[in-house]
Amino acid sequence: MHGSAFLGSHFKGALDLGEGELILVPVVRALAAFFLAFSGGILLFPLAIAVLKKMKVRQSFRTKEEVRDLADLHAAKANTPTMGGLCLWLLVVVASLVCGKTNGPLLSALYVFTAFCAIGLADDVAKMRSGKSAGISPPVKLFFEALALAALFLALRIWDFDLYESVHAIYFPPADGALVSHLPTILLLPFSFFVVAGSANGVNLADGADGLAAWCSMPTTIALAIACAVSATDANGFGELAVAMGALCGSLLAFLWHNCQPASIFMGDCGSLAIGGLFGVTALLICQPFLMAIAGGVFVAEALSVFAQVYYFKWSGGKRIFRMAPIHHHFELSGWAESRVVGRFCIVSIICASCGIALNLA
Amino acid sequence: MHGSAFLGSHFKGALDLGEGELILVPVVRALAAFFLAFSGGILLFPLAIAVLKKMKVRQSFRTKEEVRDLADLHAAKANTPTMGGLCLWLLVVVASLVCGKTNGPLLSALYVFTAFCAIGLADDVAKMRSGKSAGISPPVKLFFEALALAALFLALRIWDFDLYESVHAIYFPPADGALVSHLPTILLLPFSFFVVAGSANGVNLADGADGLAAWCSMPTTIALAIACAVSATDANGFGELAVAMGALCGSLLAFLWHNCQPASIFMGDCGSLAIGGLFGVTALLICQPFLMAIAGGVFVAEALSVFAQVYYFKWSGGKRIFRMAPIHHHFELSGWAESRVVGRFCIVSIICASCGIALNLA
Repeated sequence: MHGSAFLGSHFKGALDLGEGELILVPVVRALAAFFLAFSGGILLFPLAIAVLKKMKVRQSFRTKEEVRDLADLHAAKANTPTMGGLCLWLLVVVASLVCGKTNGPLLSALYVFTAFCAIGLADDVAKMRSGKSAGISPPVKLFFEALALAALFLALRIWDFDLYESVHAIYFPPADGALVSHLPTILLLPFSFFVVAGSANGVNLADGADGLAAWCSMPTTIALAIACAVSATDANGFGELAVAMGALCGSLLAFLWHNCQPASIFMGDCGSLAIGGLFGVTALLICQPFLMAIAGGVFVAEALSVFAQVYYFKWSGGKRIFRMAPIHHHFELSGWAESRVVGRFCIVSIICASCGIALNLA
Repeated sequence: MHGSAFLGSHFKGALDLGEGELILVPVVRALAAFFLAFSGGILLFPLAIAVLKKMKVRQSFRTKEEVRDLADLHAAKANTPTMGGLCLWLLVVVASLVCGKTNGPLLSALYVFTAFCAIGLADDVAKMRSGKSAGISPPVKLFFEALALAALFLALRIWDFDLYESVHAIYFPPADGALVSHLPTILLLPFSFFVVAGSANGVNLADGADGLAAWCSMPTTIALAIACAVSATDANGFGELAVAMGALCGSLLAFLWHNCQPASIFMGDCGSLAIGGLFGVTALLICQPFLMAIAGGVFVAEALSVFAQVYYFKWSGGKRIFRMAPIHHHFELSGWAESRVVGRFCIVSIICASCGIALNLA
């Protein structure tokens, strides 16, 4: 009765490959990476909180003049240590390398993750040094993000031409779905920048309430993990991206243990930019940038709310669409408790991710 | 490159069956049930909240004499309407019947879900009428729970002998795992009662903080859905149980929109007993009761904490292990904010569910 399991036959086939090395299927190794990153995080974060507190690594909050009522709502957060993203970085990289095979897609993803973490770190340090909420200027940050991607494509062209070729393709979400476009090389960098920097800054903007960015990232990570596993073959090696997503899931969960409201630690820009960058590059590598826009709907909404607010403000000569952007602050100022904002945004993220999963499985 | 999708080949095969009716594979219909139940819930719950508020359907809270400090922590909850479980019941039943095939497993699961909802409802009404926090006495509730299960087995023996035979088997979680035992018929009812009433009362005990039972149920539901899909064949029809789990997931998410802290509605016993009963009977039907104990670890812990507290209190002549049982109140009285208790219990539930998923996929 239990003989012909739903996935069982596929798994048995994969186990029979006899490649002599990591023959377990990606899903199993993704689960291993998940548990490894979570266990590591449970040990690492209490230590990190103690050290960061001692070193007074704190976020500089915007003043009452800058953000009006929000300053009162967030007054209690002033002494919470930040830069938890550094631990996330360590956990994801170690768990991915331990449980994954070091192929082109995995190394590309971890490279972007590392580069965006470094850019975020520079920003965090600049903010801390200046004692203000503004760090490195946005154009400089965006320039380095573009530079990191340009370096990636150059490296791929030299060392992994197959992967370089394949990232030009854009498919609509199902793994064997319709080809939307095969980008000309001239558009590869601008388009990739739009996807990766967009998703990085989307997550960065969502990181404005206790646990918001981390809880909302969980469903997106799972949707991307499933998409990677579904489109994985031995030839394209996308299974290793599922392993990285598993590692991210586990480390986020360990982080959330201390970050859920009321937070004992924040991730900082070094966390949010890195997570968003990893989302973007993963979606690009599996040729499904649309998946990021769907499964990461909350982050898209956060980014769009800022654009809408800024341009409407300029266009209308001083009127606002939202009480405050990004949009989660609008709801906070409308009277939703912080826990309600986080809970509801997480629900929306689960629905967005479910749409992404449905596109990949249906 | 995207040709040989991970699950794609399996799906295509299932689509080719040409049975002339519901030929889509269970996973796709489970996703459909998820979206249907969620959409329905988004429309239904605001209406239900308005009606229940008007009818003053409120929970009776324990007094300061009964629960000491907890009464202060929970004072704000006195006017929140309850019995949201009735909407959950409606959404799950409708979405399951619309998206699923009415076979033995699905009807059995929905029957237990309905019976336990009715028992919980009787309890809720008794509490409301008496104006006290104690409703129907526990032995009476347990008797009716056992009666509902006995009726199920009698019906299965008459109308679906194959399924009646198969529930005697107990496998350790992987879908084609080791046979732990083939229960003699004399033990079928006691063992099933232990599993189903245990899980029902576990969820019931967890329903003591805003969103706690519902958030913790989400990962358990997903783990059970995956287990059902993995062990489904055309012959056993367990795929329809995955559809019911999908419906539960969607309705829980819509419920959480209003139940996440601070809650605008509670599920009541008619919700928590029904959800737990559905978990238990689903695990039983797919012959993996151990899966419920693993994937529903939080509910097991809640139930065990009450047993431990009560028996240690009697044995030691008045000493307590926890400041208060069930265990989530212990942490609340230890100074964790309610949102932190819910967040961390949800994280534990995700880890427990991941263990269950790993057992089924690894």
